[in-house]
Amino acid sequence: MANIREIAKKANISIATVSRHLNGTGYVSEEAREKIQKVIDELNYTPNALARAMFTKNSKTIGLMVPNISNPFFNQMASVIEEYAKKMGYTIFLCNTDDDREKEKNYLEVLQSHRVAGIIASRSQCREEYVNINIPIIAFENHILDNIITISSDNYNGGKMAFDHLYKKGCRKILHIKGPHVFEATELRYKGFLEEAKSRNLEIDVIEFQHDFQVQMLEESIRSMKSINNYDGIFVFNDIAAATVMRALKKSGVRIPQEVQIIGFDNSFIGELLYPSLTTINQPIEELSNTIIELLIKIINGENVPIRDYIMETKLVERETTLS
Amino acid sequence: MANIREIAKKANISIATVSRHLNGTGYVSEEAREKIQKVIDELNYTPNALARAMFTKNSKTIGLMVPNISNPFFNQMASVIEEYAKKMGYTIFLCNTDDDREKEKNYLEVLQSHRVAGIIASRSQCREEYVNINIPIIAFENHILDNIITISSDNYNGGKMAFDHLYKKGCRKILHIKGPHVFEATELRYKGFLEEAKSRNLEIDVIEFQHDFQVQMLEESIRSMKSINNYDGIFVFNDIAAATVMRALKKSGVRIPQEVQIIGFDNSFIGELLYPSLTTINQPIEELSNTIIELLIKIINGENVPIRDYIMETKLVERETTLS
Repeated sequence: MANIREIAKKANISIATVSRHLNGTGYVSEEAREKIQKVIDELNYTPNALARAMFTKNSKTIGLMVPNISNPFFNQMASVIEEYAKKMGYTIFLCNTDDDREKEKNYLEVLQSHRVAGIIASRSQCREEYVNINIPIIAFENHILDNIITISSDNYNGGKMAFDHLYKKGCRKILHIKGPHVFEATELRYKGFLEEAKSRNLEIDVIEFQHDFQVQMLEESIRSMKSINNYDGIFVFNDIAAATVMRALKKSGVRIPQEVQIIGFDNSFIGELLYPSLTTINQPIEELSNTIIELLIKIINGENVPIRDYIMETKLVERETTLS
Repeated sequence: MANIREIAKKANISIATVSRHLNGTGYVSEEAREKIQKVIDELNYTPNALARAMFTKNSKTIGLMVPNISNPFFNQMASVIEEYAKKMGYTIFLCNTDDDREKEKNYLEVLQSHRVAGIIASRSQCREEYVNINIPIIAFENHILDNIITISSDNYNGGKMAFDHLYKKGCRKILHIKGPHVFEATELRYKGFLEEAKSRNLEIDVIEFQHDFQVQMLEESIRSMKSINNYDGIFVFNDIAAATVMRALKKSGVRIPQEVQIIGFDNSFIGELLYPSLTTINQPIEELSNTIIELLIKIINGENVPIRDYIMETKLVERETTLS
């Protein structure tokens, strides 16, 4: 395979110019571009990602670690991030961690060794593994280290809104199905929900799911939900989990929203596919995703980005699982 | 960063032995392993994926191109492939092509330049782009080139089964909502369905979706479905599209299955979340996924794998959207 030196020689152009052209790092005249391209075509030269990475310290690929590809929220987030990245000339490698620390650690190592330009770590289960990593990183939801920016929705206020809505709609026997305690976002939803219940002097019941939605658990979780029939309002920690709960309730003949009102969290597309359609708390998926990738690319480009939490507003989306 | 030569020198061990240890390509004594590891720890040496790839021609990463991460079928397929790959020491980079030829072409170039060990191309929209690619490739559903193995379900027979089931359940005014004509699999489902209708001398109506399910199209497709109310049986090309159709019908007050019976295709998890739950044609997702990754790793390892179509059996899964 040809290298940059051969190209420069054949095209009779300086190595620095060829490098600027291949890496898109500075001005190259139209004439020079044409000459270089001609030689590249002749030599059948494929720019080697790593060679390029070593030269510019920028491989133009970004690793996007998502905790659960079966959760529509993360599908939508990945799509938006990918679209923005593409516009900026970056390609996304999607890495599915399954909320598993060992899998995340392995991906971190593999992405490092592939010298990606940046990493997005969603709902990370690692901490010290990120010390001494010389690649720009943005965290979504779970915090990793003090020097890493964390982006999330306002989950606490979202939890408060969920309670207020059920309460206003007349619910008094309320259940919260919460997420695993290692999910910072769903813990905050739980805290906001609980806080608001306390302010109304209402006791609520709480049960915890041990995992985010997983296909393998579908039947099991539907079975376990069958005993839940003493409530008039249920707040489920995310939309896809709410879908399994609704499925179980309908299977038992419970009418939604007449007998039980349901509210989810995310406003992912699954909520609109359900019948009745799901009332939920909106996470601004586009805004979150665009902010994540925008800040990451700024850091990659050496811009100064303040290290702090970036928290996006949540809001109620009323649909058919709560009374109109 | 230290290189293999330095490690060999410091550990007082031959370069060949260090290489065997780092690449796992042959016997290394326990004593030598310990010496090498000690030096590696001292030098803080991270084996460079590409350096390793260039040495062993095997980077231990596999690019899995999926056409639509919002389709639960491909989520499930990716999970199974990933699990198998992990057991075999491979890491999966998931690449979402959106059934877009340009995106697929870009991923193909990026995966090549990252020197992945192998590529799985699902529902590829490219052909000549794969000529002269020196990386093992397996195709899923859409054929690419004569020298590339293609794996798929028996979509044609699945389509026949879908018709037979609706017919047996009494449907006589039947609609097929087919997939885009560039999807080989859904074309075969359509052909099988049509063939079986002909053998019964029954005319069916057919409309074509221009894309697989996309979040952006959700409202639009639900709106367009509202006019579909003259049929007593509908076969939809996949489960996630069937979910949008069901949503639209229920919104218009149509009772499923009493007024319209529905059958999907895939047996992905969405079918069980719907109410009523979706009758569908099962694709053996585990068997398909395991065959894909198993054959790919065999080719990577230089084993002789016959180049032919591998077609897995489909079968009917009766649930609640057709009459019992």
